[in-house]
Amino acid sequence: MANPSPGNSITLRVSAPSSFTATSELAAAVGAAGAAITALDVTESHHETIVVDVTCNTTDDAHAARVKDALNALDGVSVQHVSDRTFLMHLGGKLEVVPKVALRNRDDLSRAYTPGVARVCLAIAEDPAAARNLTVKRNTIAVLTDGSAVLGLGNIGPAAALPVMEGKAALFKQFANVDAWPVCLDTQDTEEIIKIAKAMAPVYGGINLEDIAAPRCFEIEKRLRDELDIPVFHDDQHGTAIVTLAALVNALRVVDKKLSEVKIVVSGVGAAGSAIIQLLKAQGAQHIVAAGRSGAIHSGEKYDDEHRSWIAANTNEEGFSGTLHEALKGADVFIGVSAPHVIGEEQVASMAENAIVFAMANPTPEIDPGIASKHAAVVATGRSDFPNQINNVLAFPGFFRGLLDAGASDITPNMLVAAAEAIANRVADDELNASYIIPSVFDPHVAAEVAAAVAAAAQENAAS
Amino acid sequence: MANPSPGNSITLRVSAPSSFTATSELAAAVGAAGAAITALDVTESHHETIVVDVTCNTTDDAHAARVKDALNALDGVSVQHVSDRTFLMHLGGKLEVVPKVALRNRDDLSRAYTPGVARVCLAIAEDPAAARNLTVKRNTIAVLTDGSAVLGLGNIGPAAALPVMEGKAALFKQFANVDAWPVCLDTQDTEEIIKIAKAMAPVYGGINLEDIAAPRCFEIEKRLRDELDIPVFHDDQHGTAIVTLAALVNALRVVDKKLSEVKIVVSGVGAAGSAIIQLLKAQGAQHIVAAGRSGAIHSGEKYDDEHRSWIAANTNEEGFSGTLHEALKGADVFIGVSAPHVIGEEQVASMAENAIVFAMANPTPEIDPGIASKHAAVVATGRSDFPNQINNVLAFPGFFRGLLDAGASDITPNMLVAAAEAIANRVADDELNASYIIPSVFDPHVAAEVAAAVAAAAQENAAS
Repeated sequence: MANPSPGNSITLRVSAPSSFTATSELAAAVGAAGAAITALDVTESHHETIVVDVTCNTTDDAHAARVKDALNALDGVSVQHVSDRTFLMHLGGKLEVVPKVALRNRDDLSRAYTPGVARVCLAIAEDPAAARNLTVKRNTIAVLTDGSAVLGLGNIGPAAALPVMEGKAALFKQFANVDAWPVCLDTQDTEEIIKIAKAMAPVYGGINLEDIAAPRCFEIEKRLRDELDIPVFHDDQHGTAIVTLAALVNALRVVDKKLSEVKIVVSGVGAAGSAIIQLLKAQGAQHIVAAGRSGAIHSGEKYDDEHRSWIAANTNEEGFSGTLHEALKGADVFIGVSAPHVIGEEQVASMAENAIVFAMANPTPEIDPGIASKHAAVVATGRSDFPNQINNVLAFPGFFRGLLDAGASDITPNMLVAAAEAIANRVADDELNASYIIPSVFDPHVAAEVAAAVAAAAQENAAS
Repeated sequence: MANPSPGNSITLRVSAPSSFTATSELAAAVGAAGAAITALDVTESHHETIVVDVTCNTTDDAHAARVKDALNALDGVSVQHVSDRTFLMHLGGKLEVVPKVALRNRDDLSRAYTPGVARVCLAIAEDPAAARNLTVKRNTIAVLTDGSAVLGLGNIGPAAALPVMEGKAALFKQFANVDAWPVCLDTQDTEEIIKIAKAMAPVYGGINLEDIAAPRCFEIEKRLRDELDIPVFHDDQHGTAIVTLAALVNALRVVDKKLSEVKIVVSGVGAAGSAIIQLLKAQGAQHIVAAGRSGAIHSGEKYDDEHRSWIAANTNEEGFSGTLHEALKGADVFIGVSAPHVIGEEQVASMAENAIVFAMANPTPEIDPGIASKHAAVVATGRSDFPNQINNVLAFPGFFRGLLDAGASDITPNMLVAAAEAIANRVADDELNASYIIPSVFDPHVAAEVAAAVAAAAQENAAS
C-alpha cells in the first residue's frame, strides 16, 4: 500500500535552530518525504535551538527511516529519537485481568475467597449448570489460535500471534462487553488442539477460533462443535462470511442488482472463502465461481479435501476451468479472501458494468482500492484506513454477546444470517452510497443489534 | 467451626408490624438464634407494617435456615426473601478482561489491531524474547488447576474449582498488580496436564499450580520446571511453606525457642507438608516428625513415593513409629496441613510448655483455635476470621511480582527463604505478640517487600 497509515505512525524528537520558519521547514520536509503529519509540538525552546516532537503517518519502516533522513539533512537539524507509536501502544500488552469485586477487608476476603467461596464451589459441584451464573463462564470466551495463519503473515507461531489475539480480546470488551482471553497454543497438531480446547472449556462460555490454517481449522471447528456444550465460532470463516454478506447485500442495493442473478467470483478457497460461499448460497446466490492458486474449482476435477469437493459440487454450474483472471471477465462481483495483488487494473476493467470489488486480504488487499475504483462501482477492503471496511469487528463482538446472553450451546445458520441482516440494516436508505455500504466499526449500535438478532435466533431454535 | 462468619453472611428481607420495638425484637431474635447482626435497614415503612433488611453472619446454611425460622416465629413477622451475600458476590464471576489501550477511533484501531499490529507480530516472530515486552506475557500468569484437591473440599472437578481460581486471580491483581488468569482443566491425567501447560505457555510469564492432588502435583511441577522457560510455582506447596516459615520464625521469637532445637510435628505429608518440611530443614530445623493417616513416617518402613521416602530419610532421626497423637507428646510445634479435627484438646495439653499450634486445614482446622489456645502459647490457622492467619496471600502475589519484575525463568530455594524473611520482618519487635506473629493480609507493604526480596534473589542467582 502506498498510503501513509496510522498503523505506521512515528514520533520524531527533533532538535532544530530556533527561527521563525523552523517548524514550517520541518513540516515541509516531512511532507516532501511523503509522510502525513498528524501532530507537531514544540516541547523545549532555548535561545539557539528548539526541540520539536513531529508525529506523522508513514507507509512502512523503510519510509520511516527516509523521513528521519530527510529531517537530518536539513541545516542544523538533528533527529534525537524516533518512537514508533504502534510499538509504544503494545508495551506490556493490551489487556489486564481486573477483579469485579472489592477486596477491601477481611469480610470481603471471607466471601470472595476462603472460607465463603467453598459454598459456591459446592453449589457448582452439585449443579454444574450453576457455573454459568456463578463464575466468569457467564461472560467469557476464549480467543484460540495456533498461530498458523495470522493476518496475511502466515505461520508465525503462537507467541507472535498473541498481539492479534489481545487486540481481538480488547475489541470484544470494547464493543460488546464480552470478556475474552487469548489462548495461543504451541502446537499445530489437530488432535492436540481439540483435546486442549476441550480440557480448558470449563472456564469459557464460548470459543472463538482465530487464524488457524485450513484445512485444520475445519476439522477443529467441526469436532469441537460436536463434542463441546459451548458455542464454537471460527471467526475467519463465519465472522468474515457474515460481514461479507452484509456488505454485498448493500452493495447490490447501490448498483441495483440481485444476489440471485449476479456472477460472483471468489478468490481464495481457504477457511473464509468456503464459509462465504456457503452463506451466499444459503441466501440464494446462484452463479458463483471460486478460484484457488491453480484456477477455478470445477466439477470436472477431483479434490482431496471435503471443502473443495463441496465447492466443486455446489458452484460453477458451467464447469469453467480457467484462471482467476479469466473468470473475472464479465463478472459482477469479486470477493477476495486470498493474497496481495492477485488481480490488477486490467482484470477489474474486464468485469461487468457497475462491478463490485471486495479486496479483503489483510493487511495488503488483492488490489489497491484506489486502482480498483477506477473501474468498479463499489470497492471495499478489510482495512480501517479506506472507506467500506469489511471488518469482522462488526460481527464477532455482538455475535458472542448474543450467544452468551441466550446461553446458547450451538451456532446455527439462521444466527449467521440474522447477524448479517442486522449489520446491513444499520445503513439506512438515505445513508447508502458506494462509499458507505457498511456501517462504521465505531457505530455504537451495531453490536447491540447483532446481539439481539442472534439471541432471538437462538431462542427460535430452542423453541422449534 | 461454631463462630458466625462473614463467609456465611445473609440478608433477610423481613415484613414486621410497625411498632416502636419492632426492630429491636428482630435484632434480639437474630441474636438469640446465634447469628451476629452486621446491618439493619428499614427499607419501607407503612401504617401497619415495615420492611427491614437484616444482614447477619451465620455459621452455615442450616444455621441460616434456623435464623429465618426464628424470625418467622415472631408474632406478625414474615421473612419475604433471604439472599446469600457470598453468592451475590459471585454472580457473573469475579474477574473481567479489560483493554489497557483506548480504542476510540480508527487511528487507535489501526495501531492496536490491523494493520499496525502486524509489525508487532513480525518483531516477535523475529525475536521471540520480545514477547515479554510487547504482550501480556510481561505481567500475566496462569492459575492452573485440575480441580482434584480444592481447599478442603477434595476432588470437586474443574468447574467447581473455578470460583477459587478466580478469587486467587483477584488477589494477585489486588495485592501485586499481577494479571492472573484461571485455567481449570477437565483432565486429571498427569501427562495431559503437562502437555497442555506447555502448549498454553506462550501467553504467560509464569504458572501458579493450584489445588492439584499429591503425588500428581509433584510430577507436574518438576516436569514443567524442567521443560518450560517460565517459572512454575505450586502454591499449595511453596506458598504455604513460605508463610509457615515466616510465621514459625516469629512464633519462636514469642516463646523464645530456637528452630534448631524445637521438636516439630507435621500432620499431613501431602503437597504442603513435604514442601514445609523441606524449607524448615533448609533453614536448620533438626527435630521433625511427619505423620500421615497411618502414623509417623520413619526410616524403618518402605514408602512407594519419593516424597515419603525423602521424608523418612531426612526427618524423625529417632525412628519414632507411633501415631500422630503419640508424636505430639512433649512436642514444641504442631504444624497441621491435613484435615479437620485430627487432634483434640488432650493432644495440645500433652505438648511441651509454650507450645505452638498451626492448625491450617481449610476451611475447618485440625483443632478449634479457641480450644487449642487453652494450652498452647501461640495458635494460628489458615482462616481469615481468627488472629494469626497463615495465609498464602502474604506470599504468592509478591512472589510472582518479583519473578515477573526480574524476568525470572526459574524458582530457587533462596527465593523462597527471601520471601519468608521479608514477611516475618514486616512484624516489628514492638508489634510482635502471641496474637500477631504474622502481618495482616491487608498490610499494604508485604507484597512489595516480598517482590523486592524475590527479585533481588533472582538477580543474585543470575550473577552467580
